[in-house]
Amino acid sequence: MKKLNIAVIGTGRMGSVHVRNLARLIPEANLAAICDIRLEVAQAIADELGIERVVKDYHELLADRNIDAVLIATSTDTHAFIIKDVAEAGKHIFCEKPLALDLASIDDALAVVKKAKIKLQVGFNRRFDKSFKRVREIVSSGEIGRPCILRITNRDPDFPAMEFLRVSGGMFLDMTIHDFDMARFLVGEVEEIYATGSALLNPELNEFGDIDTNVVTLKFANGAVGAIDNSRKAVYGYDQRLEVFCSNGTAMADNESESTIVKGDPQGFHSAPPPYFFIQRYAPCYVEEVRQFIECVRDDKPTPTTGEDGRIAVALGHAAWKSLRENRPVKVAEILGGQ
Amino acid sequence: MKKLNIAVIGTGRMGSVHVRNLARLIPEANLAAICDIRLEVAQAIADELGIERVVKDYHELLADRNIDAVLIATSTDTHAFIIKDVAEAGKHIFCEKPLALDLASIDDALAVVKKAKIKLQVGFNRRFDKSFKRVREIVSSGEIGRPCILRITNRDPDFPAMEFLRVSGGMFLDMTIHDFDMARFLVGEVEEIYATGSALLNPELNEFGDIDTNVVTLKFANGAVGAIDNSRKAVYGYDQRLEVFCSNGTAMADNESESTIVKGDPQGFHSAPPPYFFIQRYAPCYVEEVRQFIECVRDDKPTPTTGEDGRIAVALGHAAWKSLRENRPVKVAEILGGQ
Amino acid sequence: MKKLNIAVIGTGRMGSVHVRNLARLIPEANLAAICDIRLEVAQAIADELGIERVVKDYHELLADRNIDAVLIATSTDTHAFIIKDVAEAGKHIFCEKPLALDLASIDDALAVVKKAKIKLQVGFNRRFDKSFKRVREIVSSGEIGRPCILRITNRDPDFPAMEFLRVSGGMFLDMTIHDFDMARFLVGEVEEIYATGSALLNPELNEFGDIDTNVVTLKFANGAVGAIDNSRKAVYGYDQRLEVFCSNGTAMADNESESTIVKGDPQGFHSAPPPYFFIQRYAPCYVEEVRQFIECVRDDKPTPTTGEDGRIAVALGHAAWKSLRENRPVKVAEILGGQ
Amino acid sequence: MKKLNIAVIGTGRMGSVHVRNLARLIPEANLAAICDIRLEVAQAIADELGIERVVKDYHELLADRNIDAVLIATSTDTHAFIIKDVAEAGKHIFCEKPLALDLASIDDALAVVKKAKIKLQVGFNRRFDKSFKRVREIVSSGEIGRPCILRITNRDPDFPAMEFLRVSGGMFLDMTIHDFDMARFLVGEVEEIYATGSALLNPELNEFGDIDTNVVTLKFANGAVGAIDNSRKAVYGYDQRLEVFCSNGTAMADNESESTIVKGDPQGFHSAPPPYFFIQRYAPCYVEEVRQFIECVRDDKPTPTTGEDGRIAVALGHAAWKSLRENRPVKVAEILGGQ
Repeated sequence: MKKLNIAVIGTGRMGSVHVRNLARLIPEANLAAICDIRLEVAQAIADELGIERVVKDYHELLADRNIDAVLIATSTDTHAFIIKDVAEAGKHIFCEKPLALDLASIDDALAVVKKAKIKLQVGFNRRFDKSFKRVREIVSSGEIGRPCILRITNRDPDFPAMEFLRVSGGMFLDMTIHDFDMARFLVGEVEEIYATGSALLNPELNEFGDIDTNVVTLKFANGAVGAIDNSRKAVYGYDQRLEVFCSNGTAMADNESESTIVKGDPQGFHSAPPPYFFIQRYAPCYVEEVRQFIECVRDDKPTPTTGEDGRIAVALGHAAWKSLRENRPVKVAEILGGQ
Repeated sequence: MKKLNIAVIGTGRMGSVHVRNLARLIPEANLAAICDIRLEVAQAIADELGIERVVKDYHELLADRNIDAVLIATSTDTHAFIIKDVAEAGKHIFCEKPLALDLASIDDALAVVKKAKIKLQVGFNRRFDKSFKRVREIVSSGEIGRPCILRITNRDPDFPAMEFLRVSGGMFLDMTIHDFDMARFLVGEVEEIYATGSALLNPELNEFGDIDTNVVTLKFANGAVGAIDNSRKAVYGYDQRLEVFCSNGTAMADNESESTIVKGDPQGFHSAPPPYFFIQRYAPCYVEEVRQFIECVRDDKPTPTTGEDGRIAVALGHAAWKSLRENRPVKVAEILGGQ
Repeated sequence: MKKLNIAVIGTGRMGSVHVRNLARLIPEANLAAICDIRLEVAQAIADELGIERVVKDYHELLADRNIDAVLIATSTDTHAFIIKDVAEAGKHIFCEKPLALDLASIDDALAVVKKAKIKLQVGFNRRFDKSFKRVREIVSSGEIGRPCILRITNRDPDFPAMEFLRVSGGMFLDMTIHDFDMARFLVGEVEEIYATGSALLNPELNEFGDIDTNVVTLKFANGAVGAIDNSRKAVYGYDQRLEVFCSNGTAMADNESESTIVKGDPQGFHSAPPPYFFIQRYAPCYVEEVRQFIECVRDDKPTPTTGEDGRIAVALGHAAWKSLRENRPVKVAEILGGQ
Repeated sequence: MKKLNIAVIGTGRMGSVHVRNLARLIPEANLAAICDIRLEVAQAIADELGIERVVKDYHELLADRNIDAVLIATSTDTHAFIIKDVAEAGKHIFCEKPLALDLASIDDALAVVKKAKIKLQVGFNRRFDKSFKRVREIVSSGEIGRPCILRITNRDPDFPAMEFLRVSGGMFLDMTIHDFDMARFLVGEVEEIYATGSALLNPELNEFGDIDTNVVTLKFANGAVGAIDNSRKAVYGYDQRLEVFCSNGTAMADNESESTIVKGDPQGFHSAPPPYFFIQRYAPCYVEEVRQFIECVRDDKPTPTTGEDGRIAVALGHAAWKSLRENRPVKVAEILGGQ
């Protein structure tokens, strides 16, 4: 079977994960080239993995007829214009989340994608986690009735760098966005959001209006309700739990563990923390999402996470910010317009 | 040591639990009399336990100088006036929750209690659970830093009778009230509430404006936030979990289990549900709360759950109803007045 | 319904548990008298519980026609002759384990019991544990096939007093005896035993030939095999786990916990130890076994743990000692004679 | 850094796992060639992975100066003579367990290895499991005192093919051998073994003297005791648990899970089985053991699992068979000679 030729733009933290996966774990793809404006960063990883083509300017890749698809893992502010360029070049796109911080840029990019009739997949990696997928299977099968209450606990082990936080779109657009997408994946469309939170752990965030602790209430179109809670710093590790409570049962995904060891001593029993952070915890998801993207391109199927998924998750983030700032429940339609 | 003479008014579901405990498990008390307007109900339990004095009208007990204290476990609508009568008779009071459904009645009763200088304890049994107490110890010791996020899952295994629901004050005053008290016990005073919910499982509740599913967001005076979720019907059993996530750690109380058995078969592993309902789950708490009440009377110490605790929990219930009906966050001061 | 009049002989550690249970938690019985050669010990507990009749010499009780049954909780060396005296007086007997340390005394006592046609129950309390009972139900129902492997972990939190150890019959007769009975309860008759062990934790035990650590292998008549492991000192607490692995599944009973609390901190997750020791861990069993004894007397049914159960458990203990000393597998028939 | 050139002989079940790992996940190695007497089997996997050199006869590889090391994953009966040939050709060896079924062949092969001064590593993959390694760290650090009791539960999800069983060396040499090695890894040298077991699940095994269920008792040189239990068929999945109970604590490794999902329904809570079998459960170990082998060759360090480890594990297997057949404890020295 012919391999898909794929190029990766952006070889930073997430980009390098994708580059490694494509080079080693995804034989369905041929990693045709990698690109980073910091050429030396891309070159280092290319040397390590024996990747032949390394470019600094992604425009060089656009004209290459051999390249079928592009994976975009640059900083968020560049996603929208790169998507437009790549789409216009007729190549399929896998883009890291969020598509952009503002809906106008997203709408603009999605219009180009639509016109170009290329595939676009957004990097909501958690949808590919075996446990969360299993929750969805159980819930959507109807075997435990209709969804009533969604609970998501999503807490990072530590703060990202301050420079990143300043341009991240803030907690709801950088972190809670995963939970918004997960909520839609597991329960359905969200109609209204009420968000609370503050900078309890690091008051420095107040300087640019960000927070580090929050609880977000969701009302779904199907009548279910949900509560998300987030923290930027769980000292015991990356805390990733969720539950969909239904009319005839419940489905809960607990944390994974670094090991299954339990140590008993005079103080009681001690067990291992979760895998350190997203790159470890969701390692198999990063492989699986790209594998499915390649399959969708090849078989001309809809991608599992679409541009619309990317757009709505951002809209939910804006609804949360609006809710927090105005201290009132905000309808998603207020953000997405006349719906 | 002299035993406290105690009488029980109301020998229904909760009252009979207290009667049995006082007769068998609380040697510090002498169960002097029991009372129920349905005399035959009281007589049956008296016969079973060998209790000598059974009365129909609680006024008979008030003049009895030998009775030191009264435990009130009648229906909610009678609590306030019985409290007043008993207090005026100079006897100490243990009263089941809620004190009343309206704050005016509560204020009225508490004024009499204050004037009479008697002890009043309200039956927030969950404060006496060994696991929840341990969470409070951990949190209040400061060993895991300051509280940031409270999560409470409180789900009943099944609906109570419709007749009860119609006079119960609704989900927030009958069921969530325990969580409001627990929130104050674990984290501190609540300043604002936002409540969502609906009758997802039994639409008949809509007839009298009640709900069966909810998510309630709390903002605490100390900056922490909280999310409570409740359901009237968890088919897998009485679900009682909570967590206080703090700046340097977390303390979680998981469900207890009917047994520790795990069965493995070709479908995987199967473990036992929680103890069926509150009477089983919180059995030791019902003993402990009365034991502590007796100790407080004897040693002239403040009761662990006061009239004020009972009053504020009801106020939080009203705030939740107001929030649900007006779909906006409601400050507790709106309910309790100029604070 | 007429209450059974019961007397307790021996009010030490186990005896006082039974006295308290009979006085408070077993309304089916009337605690007619208690007896201890250390009269002041019996008197103290009688004062506490309001028990009227206290005697020093158990012979006083034998002539009392009102006493239907006697619970024997004296030191092991007195069990056999007290059983004989009580049986000859025509009273039913509940006797703590072991019946005696030597089989000749047991055979002697059981012959008198048989002739007197009274009921005898031996205090194998663990058979009444809800989890172990559930394992037996699962296994004996056949729903998971035939038993193949039994595993029992039974570890005490700390050593008993040296004076007790010197007269206890040693680890296999004092401690493993519970596991031998549990093995028969869950899987069936044992045919052969191989025992290993030594005094790893306290070499002082070598003085009188005792051990503190062991692993015992069992071969059952039905072909199943088993492994028991014991320690006198598990610093993390009283460790009580077992599993019956069957041809179509497995049934495992894990430890109970002091509380359900999990604390997360930078070192990982920490959970509570098991309930401290047998009196806490098996508290409900001590009530239930006596309740069932009373029911068996009343309804003239066979007792759930018979004299023969007591005899075989002791025989298995002797087989284990013989195996350890001769370092070879020992058939139970070598101990019990031509069977 | 120069890559190690490695060839794989035998591309069956285990061989193909190693081939895939070397091709994709172990960049430190260059997979120079693969070999299988069933050339078409090797060719298929070579085509899939783009491996250039495929040979039928391993002798072809011996003369190739470019090949630094050989991984042997052929059937057990060929291990010893291939080891000798490869060692004489001066190439380092990673060989799957067991080295051979008889000690004479092993001694013979190890003598050649010694003379050739090449590295030999034996494929005891479980030593590389993160949880078991952590148990060893805890135990060997001394933080929980000295080892007293080892418990290993090792149960396969289903029988291998009958043809394999007939030549496998039987349960103790094919399956328990892993536990013997783990026992040495975690606690130390074994002095004496007592083995019981029978063909409870498949009586057909009796035809060639094999068993499917066993319990093995170990006595260690340091005084600790151990119990291993094995079954060929655990219907709930591959069961891999162990515990080292020490004088000041315990370290337990529980099963891993296919997912962290818990489903609650009216029958209770249901959780996922363990990963299906050794290739899934120990996947990271197969990568790690080869990675460490490569590192040892490169840095001229002793391999983590030596020829001697392979030899002793086989000796323990023979001791177990002798014990079972003669129904007596067997000293390891009886097998290994005057030691």
